[in-house]
Amino acid sequence: MSYWETITVGETIELGSHTFEAEAIKRFAAKYDPQGFHLDEETAKASMFGGLCASGWHTAAVCMRLNVDTRAAHAREWIAAGNPAPKMGPSPGVTNLRWLKPVYAGDTVTFRQTVTAKRKSASRPGWGVLEFTTLGVNQNGEPVFSFDGAAFSGTD
Amino acid sequence: MSYWETITVGETIELGSHTFEAEAIKRFAAKYDPQGFHLDEETAKASMFGGLCASGWHTAAVCMRLNVDTRAAHAREWIAAGNPAPKMGPSPGVTNLRWLKPVYAGDTVTFRQTVTAKRKSASRPGWGVLEFTTLGVNQNGEPVFSFDGAAFSGTD
Repeated sequence: MSYWETITVGETIELGSHTFEAEAIKRFAAKYDPQGFHLDEETAKASMFGGLCASGWHTAAVCMRLNVDTRAAHAREWIAAGNPAPKMGPSPGVTNLRWLKPVYAGDTVTFRQTVTAKRKSASRPGWGVLEFTTLGVNQNGEPVFSFDGAAFSGTD
Repeated sequence: MSYWETITVGETIELGSHTFEAEAIKRFAAKYDPQGFHLDEETAKASMFGGLCASGWHTAAVCMRLNVDTRAAHAREWIAAGNPAPKMGPSPGVTNLRWLKPVYAGDTVTFRQTVTAKRKSASRPGWGVLEFTTLGVNQNGEPVFSFDGAAFSGTD
């Protein structure tokens, strides 16, 4: 059985949780999204958000990190069981990326991914495309982040 | 005239350019997207990409930084001309985010944004929603990154 064959449409994978600390929110924002509500508690309190919250791109980047770590751990298990290394390809993009609620300083977001489709590529032999939806939920069970993605994966 | 009224559907704003240096690509990847083709020249050479390239989320984050800087500069000009500070709101999300070609180490990407729609919010008096498409083009004129976005903006 190939790694590709072990992937089941409908399966949900837990990617893990991350707590967004105020200092990390400000560090990311200073570099990539320097708006007051991501940089300073007092400015944030007076803003539409009512409190310091993470850049939406920070949430996306953290989700990617947990995704890469989870996939790498799965690949290590697969290899440890005596199988060849699975081939992971690039992503052509994502769609419907939504910041559903602010991620405030101190919030813990748990990310999970559900495979929604898989198909072999007609143009690239040995490769297929996985489609999946990713959801981030905060410590109160509220969805805060979601997107639909796709990635190339080896099929042999 | 309000700041909202100065925004014209169809107008294109230059957000600026950024050169993706190898060290910055690796630093971002080590934190948020630790895959070999973003971390190490030799691994990247042997990969599907053929060379070290930036995480797609790095490209998105850099685009956001240029976007925030450009909007802030426009707001400063507007205020300097004796107008009240424009109100900038959150973004509900983006769609059709595409990594069209790899952004390799040393590539310079120029980002621009075109306003595609604006409408006043029915549910939030004093606010409207701007829709726009964002494009990143490399030094060879090749589109490498694009997405469609939306953001709340004050209308008064």
